[in-house]
Amino acid sequence: MIVVMRSGATDQEIDHMIQQVEELGLKANVLRGTERTVIAAIGDERVNGVQTLESSPGVESVMPVLAPYKLASREAHDATSVVTAGSLSVGGKQVGVMAGPCSVESEEQLMTVAKAVKAAGATALRGGAFKPRTSPYSFQGMKEDGLKLLAAARDETGLAVVTEVIAPDDVDLVGEYADVLQIGARNMQNYRLLEACGRSHRAVLLKRGPSATIDEMLLAAEYILDGGNPNVMLCERGIRTFEAHTRFTLPLATVPYLQQKTHLPVIIDPSHGTGHTSLVPAMAKAAIAAGADGIIVEVHPDPEHAMSDGYQSLRCEQFEEMMQQCRRVAEAVDRTV
Amino acid sequence: MIVVMRSGATDQEIDHMIQQVEELGLKANVLRGTERTVIAAIGDERVNGVQTLESSPGVESVMPVLAPYKLASREAHDATSVVTAGSLSVGGKQVGVMAGPCSVESEEQLMTVAKAVKAAGATALRGGAFKPRTSPYSFQGMKEDGLKLLAAARDETGLAVVTEVIAPDDVDLVGEYADVLQIGARNMQNYRLLEACGRSHRAVLLKRGPSATIDEMLLAAEYILDGGNPNVMLCERGIRTFEAHTRFTLPLATVPYLQQKTHLPVIIDPSHGTGHTSLVPAMAKAAIAAGADGIIVEVHPDPEHAMSDGYQSLRCEQFEEMMQQCRRVAEAVDRTV
Amino acid sequence: MIVVMRSGATDQEIDHMIQQVEELGLKANVLRGTERTVIAAIGDERVNGVQTLESSPGVESVMPVLAPYKLASREAHDATSVVTAGSLSVGGKQVGVMAGPCSVESEEQLMTVAKAVKAAGATALRGGAFKPRTSPYSFQGMKEDGLKLLAAARDETGLAVVTEVIAPDDVDLVGEYADVLQIGARNMQNYRLLEACGRSHRAVLLKRGPSATIDEMLLAAEYILDGGNPNVMLCERGIRTFEAHTRFTLPLATVPYLQQKTHLPVIIDPSHGTGHTSLVPAMAKAAIAAGADGIIVEVHPDPEHAMSDGYQSLRCEQFEEMMQQCRRVAEAVDRTV
Amino acid sequence: MIVVMRSGATDQEIDHMIQQVEELGLKANVLRGTERTVIAAIGDERVNGVQTLESSPGVESVMPVLAPYKLASREAHDATSVVTAGSLSVGGKQVGVMAGPCSVESEEQLMTVAKAVKAAGATALRGGAFKPRTSPYSFQGMKEDGLKLLAAARDETGLAVVTEVIAPDDVDLVGEYADVLQIGARNMQNYRLLEACGRSHRAVLLKRGPSATIDEMLLAAEYILDGGNPNVMLCERGIRTFEAHTRFTLPLATVPYLQQKTHLPVIIDPSHGTGHTSLVPAMAKAAIAAGADGIIVEVHPDPEHAMSDGYQSLRCEQFEEMMQQCRRVAEAVDRTV
Repeated sequence: MIVVMRSGATDQEIDHMIQQVEELGLKANVLRGTERTVIAAIGDERVNGVQTLESSPGVESVMPVLAPYKLASREAHDATSVVTAGSLSVGGKQVGVMAGPCSVESEEQLMTVAKAVKAAGATALRGGAFKPRTSPYSFQGMKEDGLKLLAAARDETGLAVVTEVIAPDDVDLVGEYADVLQIGARNMQNYRLLEACGRSHRAVLLKRGPSATIDEMLLAAEYILDGGNPNVMLCERGIRTFEAHTRFTLPLATVPYLQQKTHLPVIIDPSHGTGHTSLVPAMAKAAIAAGADGIIVEVHPDPEHAMSDGYQSLRCEQFEEMMQQCRRVAEAVDRTV
Repeated sequence: MIVVMRSGATDQEIDHMIQQVEELGLKANVLRGTERTVIAAIGDERVNGVQTLESSPGVESVMPVLAPYKLASREAHDATSVVTAGSLSVGGKQVGVMAGPCSVESEEQLMTVAKAVKAAGATALRGGAFKPRTSPYSFQGMKEDGLKLLAAARDETGLAVVTEVIAPDDVDLVGEYADVLQIGARNMQNYRLLEACGRSHRAVLLKRGPSATIDEMLLAAEYILDGGNPNVMLCERGIRTFEAHTRFTLPLATVPYLQQKTHLPVIIDPSHGTGHTSLVPAMAKAAIAAGADGIIVEVHPDPEHAMSDGYQSLRCEQFEEMMQQCRRVAEAVDRTV
Repeated sequence: MIVVMRSGATDQEIDHMIQQVEELGLKANVLRGTERTVIAAIGDERVNGVQTLESSPGVESVMPVLAPYKLASREAHDATSVVTAGSLSVGGKQVGVMAGPCSVESEEQLMTVAKAVKAAGATALRGGAFKPRTSPYSFQGMKEDGLKLLAAARDETGLAVVTEVIAPDDVDLVGEYADVLQIGARNMQNYRLLEACGRSHRAVLLKRGPSATIDEMLLAAEYILDGGNPNVMLCERGIRTFEAHTRFTLPLATVPYLQQKTHLPVIIDPSHGTGHTSLVPAMAKAAIAAGADGIIVEVHPDPEHAMSDGYQSLRCEQFEEMMQQCRRVAEAVDRTV
Repeated sequence: MIVVMRSGATDQEIDHMIQQVEELGLKANVLRGTERTVIAAIGDERVNGVQTLESSPGVESVMPVLAPYKLASREAHDATSVVTAGSLSVGGKQVGVMAGPCSVESEEQLMTVAKAVKAAGATALRGGAFKPRTSPYSFQGMKEDGLKLLAAARDETGLAVVTEVIAPDDVDLVGEYADVLQIGARNMQNYRLLEACGRSHRAVLLKRGPSATIDEMLLAAEYILDGGNPNVMLCERGIRTFEAHTRFTLPLATVPYLQQKTHLPVIIDPSHGTGHTSLVPAMAKAAIAAGADGIIVEVHPDPEHAMSDGYQSLRCEQFEEMMQQCRRVAEAVDRTV
């Protein structure tokens, strides 16, 4: 960590800071420049109290040097981790494709989609049974009945089931039916939920919060890893920016950047990442070209009458067509779909 | 709701949309312009299926007309609601002042701050016992022991206690000790927690998520109100923007804007809203001048050794000085502190 | 345009608004709902005075229906425009590739890069002679001497020259040497410069400002088109968001979105869009997969000693390798590079 | 400057970096930690080539320590600079108030406003003659005729004139009529314009670009100061964020933050900063409470028929009422209006 002292910081303030740094178990190196004195603190700076040094007298700023996460870091594990859950495998040569409706609405709806996405080449079925909804007046999901339908769809198609869990108390229940527990963007920093998923033996798909930094996302993953569950996938689903022509802004540079920083596989969600059906196929292809380990896509047999997210869902035929294009792009970057 | 059809939308697509609108129980008014046909749907548009119309053929965009929340709206309740909890009252002429440490750390620390902020004029004591922390390696709070210290500080000073609750299962426990349940920014869309607080008889301080829109914040409040708890205060604590010189960007225009849209009282958090001690007093004064119904401020006897948020905490003397200034500003806008 | 009246707007206010709308030459349709009255104004709303209606008594909001630009719109010109300038052609099957150094620094530097990017398959040479620099203390470019070197490099390699123009007075001078005038992100709303480029016979590469909306970018293009110059390319180069791990956030959904709204070809700049050499190739591939009509990339023989933007420049060998990958991705989406 | 080497950087890479740092005339201090080696470069890091070190082999990141601006810094000039131009003085005890219409539209309109704002206590008259407009189809201003009307209004009222200049070639002309040259937000990084204003003897009001960082704004000011013109005022007018309920987000913490970093006076524009008439008075009061040295406000005798910005203009009576409130708030913070 680097402590930059204010111009005109007194010797007493500098001595005080040296002492503070040493109390934290770090070694203080004092570098006196013409305009500023800088104190470089060497050692493991991931200790309580480091950021607080900013309140010490004469301090201008404190700049961390080390990443705040450990288990999630690329340094902790050099190769990309392969996460496997039933028919789904991400992190290897094959690009995982999770597809299905935003909400499970009925047996007929789910079976239709499940068969269609399976036929088109999806490697997992997504579908929401517990739905976090912005408005209390919106459809809140079929809950356990939805989970049962998902399990039935797995029996029928062989596709692994990815579904969201929204509360710590539900982790065991959802884990009975699902292959992958999805933590939604709004829950990325729901620490009790992260801890509960850390205790689960199910793989976890962790979505980035719409205003989370990459460090915050990796620290959320760290909660799960530190809890004992190594099977974590990270999912970029778009961030909140001033852009209003898309529901969120999808920053695909997250893919190569995360691949430098972490060994966890990286998934892209072009449905939430754009919010408009017509933009999804281009972003799915771009995600694969950028090196994503997987994509997760909303598909519905009749988006116009979907109970949620119809505006960003593909019809089954649109998904099939997109998959044909994705397959070609994957080959161009030496991957398969 | 207004449905804008694409240039060149066919009569069949327009007829289909009219039918869709009528199926939702709304009346369709078709307005044919030179470049676009627009269908104005009159009626209560807060029904499932409205947004999904965007997926219908020939549709360019769907623009809602009505606000999506009801109970929280200014129209539902013309006067500003006064929320009272022990010594704290917000929404009336007096500006509520909640002050105290980020985390409860010890009896001595808490009592020192409680007495100091009481003497300086605070009307409630804030302090965290359950702490949501970005890193699993950070101090996670004293939990129930912290709650007990808070209750003891209330006994000593008479100040109402404001403290955060981070999980639905904890609502009853926290409610036993606290006068006000704080829902933190990261939990603004933790719907189970909102529902649990809706069932509580304690007042709730709901913080805006750092990337939440005002509609999303009011819908989060709607969950609590709809659950039966009318005592909700809204708190602006800063949003995520490209600005890096402050930890968050504090948009004080939220104050007059919310006051137009909702009857719920509006609180400003200049500590999280800036992230730097030296910027807090100016923003506290500005908040009061802008018409805020209350402020919530972090105060610590020794910020340099605080276990969290030291960089944005005021020392007790700094808080006292700030309160003297705030009192003058409050008088200038016909309020009291 | 849709005028939403406030709840409780009086008949007098509604009548006044009808009159205002009619004064603008539009036809007013009054729709009285249960909670709001809405006035739909039909006609060409691109007239002075429309936005100002928001100040009329009883008005809650004014929502435009029509896009504010005309000449740039897809409706004005159904097929994608092909812009050709010397060896460069964008908007057709071939993906244009503009590559070269951020700044022209010397004859040797420029010739080395020009030959290398030509050999690797670039279709135009980029290089800055007039440099807009954030700091007055930074290298400001070789100016006309740089332009001469660019022209010499064109003579040597046959590559069209793309170079930035930063002031209206320079447009003629730069146009003497360059094939394409680049308007930088900071000048996207320098209207005098746009007007001057509108009078030029050179093609224009218009970069999106880092906080410009798509409508603002298309209106900037409209200035050039309206001035009589139809040869405009639009370039997405990243926006300012809260993300700090990249210099800007590159929203590739701009590509399919713009292709729906405008007939002008769309170029992606993965160098400025990421700000880090190591992220450029992935984003170049992703851009092509997303359907971009061209890319513009910074290449330098010795980035470590570049006078500007070294941190985001590719070495010549890196560019060559990237081009091989881009070629494969282009084929996968039925394009060529 | 601090160079953080990658984990696993070789001795050769570290030696190479030491050499690079020394070539820049800086002293290299090598600090070997357990996980990273850090090289602290001491000396004046504001030299070409510093940022480019990021491209050297084995480098993870480069963190500057010194602010990139010099003349604008608080260290260069300890007291706040007082900028005086005719009747306007900002930077002292009195809060400067610049008020008037967005655009000069006619003699009658301008004289009405000028007399009204003078009577209400404004210390300068603002009004646009050269208008930078997003759309080529919008009213572009009265140009020199508008300047003449402004000068006539000054003769009549004694108020100093603040008006925008949008091109370097116009600086002399505008300077003949105006007391203060305003550089608009869209031109904050129009370096030719900054240079031309640096050569002028008129005071300059420099508006922050909607996505400019504070460093970028101070470097823009540095262009003017470095050109020989010391009379620069900085103006915060709102930034682009995800918030859509205001046209821009007005971050008032800019006021105390700038006052720590620079000696230049700080002005707030609550009109552009909110974009809605009804939010302007609250933000004007908040700005003064936060310590602003001045405010600039749009006032129009008939906003409903204004040729630009009517939706954010105050009527003359509203301005007068606001001034009475501002006067009280100013007194509460020991200032005058």
